[in-house]
Amino acid sequence: MADFLPTFADVVAAAARIGPHIVRTSVMRSAAFDARVGRQVFFKCENLQTGGAFKYRGAINTVLQLDPARTPLVVTHSSGNHGNALALAARARGMRAIVVVPRDSARSKIANIEAAGARIEFCEPGLAAREQKLKEVLARDPGEVVHPFDDARIIAGQGTAVLELLAEHSDLDVVSTPVGGGGLIGGSALAAKALSPRIRVVGAEPANADDAFRSLKTGTRCSVQVPDTIADGLRGSIGARNFELLRTLVDDVITVSEAQIVEAMRITLQDLKLLIEPSSAVAVAAALAGQLGKQGDRVGIVLSGGNVDLDQCPFLRGAAAPAM
Amino acid sequence: MADFLPTFADVVAAAARIGPHIVRTSVMRSAAFDARVGRQVFFKCENLQTGGAFKYRGAINTVLQLDPARTPLVVTHSSGNHGNALALAARARGMRAIVVVPRDSARSKIANIEAAGARIEFCEPGLAAREQKLKEVLARDPGEVVHPFDDARIIAGQGTAVLELLAEHSDLDVVSTPVGGGGLIGGSALAAKALSPRIRVVGAEPANADDAFRSLKTGTRCSVQVPDTIADGLRGSIGARNFELLRTLVDDVITVSEAQIVEAMRITLQDLKLLIEPSSAVAVAAALAGQLGKQGDRVGIVLSGGNVDLDQCPFLRGAAAPAM
Repeated sequence: MADFLPTFADVVAAAARIGPHIVRTSVMRSAAFDARVGRQVFFKCENLQTGGAFKYRGAINTVLQLDPARTPLVVTHSSGNHGNALALAARARGMRAIVVVPRDSARSKIANIEAAGARIEFCEPGLAAREQKLKEVLARDPGEVVHPFDDARIIAGQGTAVLELLAEHSDLDVVSTPVGGGGLIGGSALAAKALSPRIRVVGAEPANADDAFRSLKTGTRCSVQVPDTIADGLRGSIGARNFELLRTLVDDVITVSEAQIVEAMRITLQDLKLLIEPSSAVAVAAALAGQLGKQGDRVGIVLSGGNVDLDQCPFLRGAAAPAM
Repeated sequence: MADFLPTFADVVAAAARIGPHIVRTSVMRSAAFDARVGRQVFFKCENLQTGGAFKYRGAINTVLQLDPARTPLVVTHSSGNHGNALALAARARGMRAIVVVPRDSARSKIANIEAAGARIEFCEPGLAAREQKLKEVLARDPGEVVHPFDDARIIAGQGTAVLELLAEHSDLDVVSTPVGGGGLIGGSALAAKALSPRIRVVGAEPANADDAFRSLKTGTRCSVQVPDTIADGLRGSIGARNFELLRTLVDDVITVSEAQIVEAMRITLQDLKLLIEPSSAVAVAAALAGQLGKQGDRVGIVLSGGNVDLDQCPFLRGAAAPAM
């Protein structure tokens, strides 16, 4: 695998390439949150990134390396944020995009992909169904496949968020991100370990989709089939390149319950005034459980995205505005 | 009144005085929101200020001008955010604080005031009850009264938010803030008109608490008694100094319905991923109604605060985390 793995140099090159195209997102803090967890926590706000998630970093890093004249079409499968990001990135480069989307994806994410001008092809949940549908699409419409996470260009792009975080706060003890397919944790680990080998890199995952946790513990790449978690962005299983980076660079993976995820969303809204999606909340939940570093540590958390169906979230009940 | 009115020089002096003590809050944008309203909107995020509202600017500007040895106690009445801000500011200076709080204030705000170390004295809603209670408190505990809005030090402090906004985006066509007692709109108008007389300064107010609207239209200071609005920070009536600034410097006041306020909170959460309180949402609602400037204009809005009772907001229903 080694020749296909991205390196720290790829993350640095990605940062230079995408710099003019992305939002250099804020790093936020909350005294109330710090008091809750007994740590100094630095939140990298990728929920404020273009498209509402870190995924735009990897997507734009990839399409900027393609020639629109030779590659007019990009194709992918995505539970939402990667599809949206790729659609936005393709449009920015004058390319077309087709996105295969599982039917159980968040409605707001599907709407975003359509608004970004991509064509949507629905499939059943689960990796097998996604890949089958992708094959069918490619048979009709040949294009460049941009995998949501198992792609060196994507991983390098995602790593730029932690690169920025550490440029502003170089003395962190721990960096944590959610783990779905492993693009974000892989790129983050490349950035963090190269800049400071003593930083602990910790993934966070729903207990109901704990493939990365089991993969790290057993040393063998595990997968999950149609996991039942509110964290719709983390239902995929860890990719091959991503597992290599996980195995060699990531110190630990923490799992959290569905109830912890929802409570973490709520506390982030209350303390930081920020809306984050369930997939982002897993790392916040790990912090609230006291599982990121030790008392007094300086902890960086990537808030990976903010695309929530307001009327489907347990504490964000639909309710159109009342008639008053 | 003129000798008691703050000037632009007071706002500039306040900015220098409080600079090391406040958060220089971010200015955020949203392509989705811009598309909704056909304007370029710049949101000054005072919901991310110390204490969760712009009120800390005025409070810290005031206590920094007091000598703790001679003035060990500050006293005020407040529906929440000013009380919290004054408590935090007093604590930072080693002073005590007593806050008279109407019983119908948001629970989260009351909890914040207590957490900030102030003593709370409850009163009935309405200005008369507030002032009566304040007198009783002062009879027992003589201290410096720091009025929530009708005070030159407070007004000058509140004006620093728009001073910062215009330092970053000097070419705005419109600046809008909510209007309660008028501290924020007064200070903002001082800053905006001095920096660029062509900027329109527009207040926004609940139709159910439209004292500033009526005051501006009639040229006479009006008041409201126990107004029925979800915007708990805007239930007070405009102050004397504040009316002078409104009358001479503010171009217009827009009123919005309760339903518009709730919808504006919801859209801000969706587009900007930011939690704002109902009082903040009035200016956002005015923008959504197309009432701030004209198509294509550059509009600055002060998001005045983010202290919301998550379990009392119409679309943020309580619901503890579900058992999963």
